[in-house]
Amino acid sequence: MPILNKDMTLCISLSARPSNNGTRFHNFLYEALGLNWIYKAFAPTNLEQAIAGVRGLGIRGCAVSMPYKEEVIALVDRMDASASAIDSVNTIVNDDGVLTAYNTDYTAIAQLIERNALDPAWSVVLRGSGGMAKATAAAFRDAGFRDVTIVARNEETGRTLAELYGFAWAADVDAALDGATADVFVNVTPIGMAGGPEADSLSFPEAAIDAARVVFDVVALPAETPLVRAGRAAGKVVISGAEVMTIQALEQFVLYTGRRPSDEQLHAAEDFMRAQ
Amino acid sequence: MPILNKDMTLCISLSARPSNNGTRFHNFLYEALGLNWIYKAFAPTNLEQAIAGVRGLGIRGCAVSMPYKEEVIALVDRMDASASAIDSVNTIVNDDGVLTAYNTDYTAIAQLIERNALDPAWSVVLRGSGGMAKATAAAFRDAGFRDVTIVARNEETGRTLAELYGFAWAADVDAALDGATADVFVNVTPIGMAGGPEADSLSFPEAAIDAARVVFDVVALPAETPLVRAGRAAGKVVISGAEVMTIQALEQFVLYTGRRPSDEQLHAAEDFMRAQ
Repeated sequence: MPILNKDMTLCISLSARPSNNGTRFHNFLYEALGLNWIYKAFAPTNLEQAIAGVRGLGIRGCAVSMPYKEEVIALVDRMDASASAIDSVNTIVNDDGVLTAYNTDYTAIAQLIERNALDPAWSVVLRGSGGMAKATAAAFRDAGFRDVTIVARNEETGRTLAELYGFAWAADVDAALDGATADVFVNVTPIGMAGGPEADSLSFPEAAIDAARVVFDVVALPAETPLVRAGRAAGKVVISGAEVMTIQALEQFVLYTGRRPSDEQLHAAEDFMRAQ
Repeated sequence: MPILNKDMTLCISLSARPSNNGTRFHNFLYEALGLNWIYKAFAPTNLEQAIAGVRGLGIRGCAVSMPYKEEVIALVDRMDASASAIDSVNTIVNDDGVLTAYNTDYTAIAQLIERNALDPAWSVVLRGSGGMAKATAAAFRDAGFRDVTIVARNEETGRTLAELYGFAWAADVDAALDGATADVFVNVTPIGMAGGPEADSLSFPEAAIDAARVVFDVVALPAETPLVRAGRAAGKVVISGAEVMTIQALEQFVLYTGRRPSDEQLHAAEDFMRAQ
């Protein structure tokens, strides 16, 4: 049985439909690092009251997911550059009642661009125009990429996102490529997502993947999306949404606790998170 | 390691200086009854925000201790008779955002008066004039006792409490007895409390105990106070604060979960709570 005690530091998540990922990932690492901490997901009934509770109960950290990532901005005290860059929050740190908001999705994508040595001179086709597409586009822009085309069927959201960062917009992949190729293909739509209507679909044409250097799928579940499999089969550099998910959770953990787990501890936490 | 999950129902406590008792008692019983629940004590930084958090996070139950038992009244939606009888709250139940306040200290004392078949015709000397003394006096009054003397050095608080329930007041035990005896002696002061300045003191004279039928010590720690030991040695009916503490926690558990543990489960939870 869990031997809980009164002195445990609490971190939570706020999401309309919580998954078990954060709860398993963070609690595993608390145990691995010997921290007297505890983590629990919540589906809040009222966001403003929930954030008041973060203050009033002295909750140390708070992950923020759909649909609260923008609404929560008005309820925090400070915005870190990672959150203000995209007007979107996925992490709140409570320092003695002062709430600072971060976005570790942005941080994770920026880390993966650097870690995989993507060259800012390369051309990028980025499919999607939602909140996560914005974080991804911002990370590419801030890494120096200029030749980026946003692909989105919805012209209004697609153009808005593209113009925000000085990128081009196209309605579909064919129009984006216009007979040419691109170096990097990034999927930030639900195409290929487990349980979704397009779970078995490939977000970019095989010919385009064959001619590319890098494929990057932000979809995290399953770890092996059709795009990730196609990229690996074609011998490309592949960046997966599973990596994004792990790094963003890891960076939350570091922000909350000030401790950075070893690679071995991190991989064990990933395995534990996935073994549901 | 604790295998926590996102679906756990949370109950908490709010207290300026939390003990580990509630956390151990409730979590033990959640496990024993196979409930996917979790309990954690908090020292809130702000009571109003903490109660907003109870609503906003959908926290099911909330124990309230010193110094919040009166202040919290303004923040709940409904007062059960157990709390309104004494204008003091030690338990809040959240039914889909509607907060109902109870006082299970009152309930516990009322149960112990009945369970030990104390006769309302008996005379009672009750020492103390704080919040717990009020709960105790109210339970005796509501059980039909009329011959009750409140003993308190502080004349103002003592007289106020006595007059509230139509009881007498006396400055000390000698004055309360005035040469006679009483049937029931009740201690609701810190005399005999572990770690306190009067830990080794007896709250009533030995001669008075010898002439009594019942001694009742509301001090819960240690389980064997000097008054409890003296009462047992003299062969009297003895009611201890440890019983009050267990019953009040049990009644909180029942209010939160709708489940009543067996006597065996309850005794195991008590043992676990005390084995710190």
